[in-house]
Parts: sequence; C-alpha cells; structure tokens
Amino acid sequence: MENDFLAWLSRSAREHPEVRVGIGDDAALLSCPPGEIVVATDMLCDGVHFDAAKVPPRKIGRKALAVNLSDLAAMAATPVAAFVSVALPRGSDECFAVEIMKGISKLADEFDVCVAGGDTNVWDGELVINVCVVGRSEQDQAKLRRSAEPGDAIMVTGNLGGSILGHHLSFQPRIREAQQIAKVSRVHACMDISDGLLLDLSRMMTASNTGAVIDYAQVPISDAAKRLAETTGKHPLDHALSDGEDFELLFTVPSKDTIHLLSDPPFASPAIRQIGTVIGEASGIFRRTADGDLLGITPVGFEHK
Amino acid sequence: MENDFLAWLSRSAREHPEVRVGIGDDAALLSCPPGEIVVATDMLCDGVHFDAAKVPPRKIGRKALAVNLSDLAAMAATPVAAFVSVALPRGSDECFAVEIMKGISKLADEFDVCVAGGDTNVWDGELVINVCVVGRSEQDQAKLRRSAEPGDAIMVTGNLGGSILGHHLSFQPRIREAQQIAKVSRVHACMDISDGLLLDLSRMMTASNTGAVIDYAQVPISDAAKRLAETTGKHPLDHALSDGEDFELLFTVPSKDTIHLLSDPPFASPAIRQIGTVIGEASGIFRRTADGDLLGITPVGFEHK
Repeated sequence: MENDFLAWLSRSAREHPEVRVGIGDDAALLSCPPGEIVVATDMLCDGVHFDAAKVPPRKIGRKALAVNLSDLAAMAATPVAAFVSVALPRGSDECFAVEIMKGISKLADEFDVCVAGGDTNVWDGELVINVCVVGRSEQDQAKLRRSAEPGDAIMVTGNLGGSILGHHLSFQPRIREAQQIAKVSRVHACMDISDGLLLDLSRMMTASNTGAVIDYAQVPISDAAKRLAETTGKHPLDHALSDGEDFELLFTVPSKDTIHLLSDPPFASPAIRQIGTVIGEASGIFRRTADGDLLGITPVGFEHK
Repeated sequence: MENDFLAWLSRSAREHPEVRVGIGDDAALLSCPPGEIVVATDMLCDGVHFDAAKVPPRKIGRKALAVNLSDLAAMAATPVAAFVSVALPRGSDECFAVEIMKGISKLADEFDVCVAGGDTNVWDGELVINVCVVGRSEQDQAKLRRSAEPGDAIMVTGNLGGSILGHHLSFQPRIREAQQIAKVSRVHACMDISDGLLLDLSRMMTASNTGAVIDYAQVPISDAAKRLAETTGKHPLDHALSDGEDFELLFTVPSKDTIHLLSDPPFASPAIRQIGTVIGEASGIFRRTADGDLLGITPVGFEHK
C-alpha cells in the first residue's frame, strides 16, 4: 500500500519552479529565494476534526491542507510546498487514500502548492493526517500576532460562527486576501480565527501586550451561526464570538487605514469589517456598555480537547 | 492540555540564529541562507513504530525526531528546525506529553535543532507523533538517490540488522558522518537504510537506472543481528540484508575514492565499508557466485504494513 500510494502521489504532483526534488527521495529540496521561510503544521484526527464515518475522504484531505494554508494566510505568506503524512486504518482500501490525496491535490493546485513529500502508514487506529506547509515571505513582511498597537482598528474578514454546519470543510484559506490587505494597508498584527474570535483575539492582545475593546454590534454573524442558534438556544452572537474553525482573518491596522480599507476594499468578498479598537492602558478584552463603561469579557472559545 | 503543553514547549525551546519566530504564532519564520531548503517528514504510530505500553515516552519522542534527522543525513544536509505534531490518547497525563518532548528536545539540542512549531491534539485513539524537519544544504550539494554511476563503489556505515532489539530507539542519526564523508570524497548517491539494505539499495539502483553487484562477505553484520538469528533461526546475514530501521548511510563513490575513505576514514566509528559495485549493464541487485556468475537477488525488506 505504502509504495503504491506514494507512487500515485508522485505521479499526480505538479511541477513547481521552487521545488527541485519532490516525492521519491529521503527529503525534498526547495529553492531559497530572498526573504524568509514560513512553516506551519497541523494534525487532524478522526473524531476530533472530522468524522470519517460521515465525511467523504476528499473533504477530509482538503481540510487537512486548508487549515495549514490558513496558518500561512495568517502571516500573509505565500505557500510553496506541502508535506502530507497519513496514518490509515488497516483494511481501508487504496481508493480511500487516493480520495484523501485528491482532496489535497485539488486545493494544492488552486493555491499553486506542490505536494513535495510525505509519509504513509497503515495501523490499527483511526485516520490521522498531518500536513506541514512551507512557504515564503519577503524579509520582515510576515505578519505576527504580537504587533498590535494601541489605537489600531481590529478588523475581521467574512462572517463568523456556526462553522460546524459545514464551513469547516469547505472554507477558502485567505491566502490572497491577506496579501491584498497587506498591500493596501499597514497591517500590524494578523492571525487566523481558528479557536473562536474572543479566544484568538485575547491571544493576539496578550502577545502584543495590549487590550481590546470590541463592539458587539459590529461582529459579523454568519447565517450558519443563526441557524445553529435555533437548535442550541444560544444567541447567534455567542456562536460568532466563540465557535471555532471560522478560518477568517483577524488583523489590526492603524485607525487611519480603515477609511480606505472599508470604503474601497481590495476585494468584493469576503467583507472586511472593523469590530473594535486596540487599547494600551489595560490587558484583556472589553466591551463598552450603554453607559459608556468598559466591561471585561472572559473569552470562551473552542479548544479541541 | 494543549496550551500548557505548547507553553512548556515554548519555554524549553532553545534560541536558534536561523529561527526568527518559533512556537507561539500561526507559523514559524526561518531565515533563508544561500543554498537550498531540505524538508523531510515522518509519522510514528503506536503499535507500528513503537509500543507505547513498553517503551518510555522519552525514547518514543527521541525516535520521532531521530528518523527525520536520518532523512536529512541521507541528503548530507544540516537540520535547522523541527515541527512536532502529536495525537495524545485521552486521559494520558501531562507528564506523558512532557516526557515525549524531553526526548525530542535532548536530541534536538545535540544536533542544534530548534523545535520551532507544532500541534497538540488529544483524541480517543493511540499515540501518533509526526515530525517535519527543515534543514539547509549548499546549492546542488544535497546527495540524491538517483546519482549512482556505473563503476561506483557501494558503501555503508556501521553494522546492519537486528535493530528491533534496541538500536531503533537509540541510533545516532548520521548527520555529521554524512557531511564528513561528503567533504573527503565525491559522494554520488546517498540514502539512509530504513527498510532494509536490499530493499533500499534496490530503490537507489532503480532511481539511478543502474544495477548493483553486492558482495555478501563484506556486508557488516551487527551483534544484534547475530543475537536475533539465534531466536529466529535465520542466518545473521539475512537480518543484516533485510531488517529495517538500521538508519545507517548507504552511498556510492567513484571507485578511486574508496582507497582514501577506507584507509583514512574521516571518523573512527562507525566503520565505513564497501559492500559492492554499481553496474550499468543490468538493473536489479546481483551477487557473484563461486563460479563468477551473477545471480539475481529479490530484495526482501521491511515495510510497515
């Protein structure tokens, strides 16, 4: 199985100008253009990040690459190569593995990513996929979590919440959007929203030694969050604030830059919105009450336990 | 668990001049020195590559990094950063995860590798660890499998076989040895022996469009292979030829270069030996009989099924 699968992988891998040696040797060789190398890795496990009994393997493969591309988007980096390791349940047919790879390959092609290596295992456990992506960024141009500054506007792309209803399997990594935003505005801090807006925002603020005042009225609530709220009995806003796997961009820009970004956004969709402001005088996340007071918010998010 | 573990990781990670941003952001940032980037990834699964019920977690962690470093050694590359993903069995205590990381960290320190990122998951299955290593190589200096040439001498480091008795958990990745050999001789093809000498040699020959004549009398048999043979009833040579996980170097050099390499080796241990010769007129692996005839050998190796 292992050799057949790797042979399939090797045949279907596209050529890439920056990949001199891909699948088939002990390691891959990538060229080293000026700038920095950006590396992210994410592991998906059956029963945690997907349910292999219900989700087609092609979608599982797609998600395994997409979550990693989202991490590179969070740095405004350009992906180059992906390295895919799988632990396949013993007895699964080759078709299952190939379907996973097709899901990966299709998304890889869309983002001009070369599947340049991997490792295939068969074991007595359930499906595990690990993807490691290697990309590049111009020197000092990668966007970090720790660079938010007091006075910055806090921005998000798209609509939030209810990802569990399907978005987590079909979302578009915001690779191009992050680069376009970074081109037309001075992005300070940036990350992707993977564990819920409040939790991820609190991490960004901690990393930046800043606080945030969030305007609940401006938080973009997805239709899925509204649909989900009908079954959970929660408020749709709670889903938008705390659900995981939105994989939208959360970033800060100098307040001046919002005018241009909001009135003349670099793309029509997803929408870019300001949801709050970075403050320097306190850490944590706050919202302003009707009286104008600041009220501390305890971030509740989504952690795969 | 996830956050505590990543925090531990982050605290214990050493600084590295080529790693500008390590654990704690969406992705790591590495500097891009002149040359090429070398990337390898390997996944280890409980019950396949180790038995978590019997092997201390520190040794499991060590092996997860070591097999990857062995892949970089196979290219004569220099490792820079490692990215560690784990799927931890639900209910395992934090000590278990930390012990795994200690095994990784200790070996990482020995080879000046920075643990620059990772992903921690807790799930209902057994332990899975994926490591992806990123290294560098001077331009066109990485050693490939496909570069063996007719007339080359086929060389190996160390002694082979019986790894299952313990070597697979304690072996030293041949990072420095590969670099030293490449410095004092014209290494053509190189790989590490992970699936058994015969199987890996046949892969190298296929990649190079060459064949090999192997001299069984010169194949270095480890003490472990001899001990194992006592219980399996096989010949020790069979273990040396076909057992997996030796993680020694298999490489070819122009026949002229063997004189210097064998009489004045660049290191005292492991021993370097010539075990055969590359031929251009036939593909496959052969041995010479007492009559001087070439006899084809079907490679039997070790594949994790």
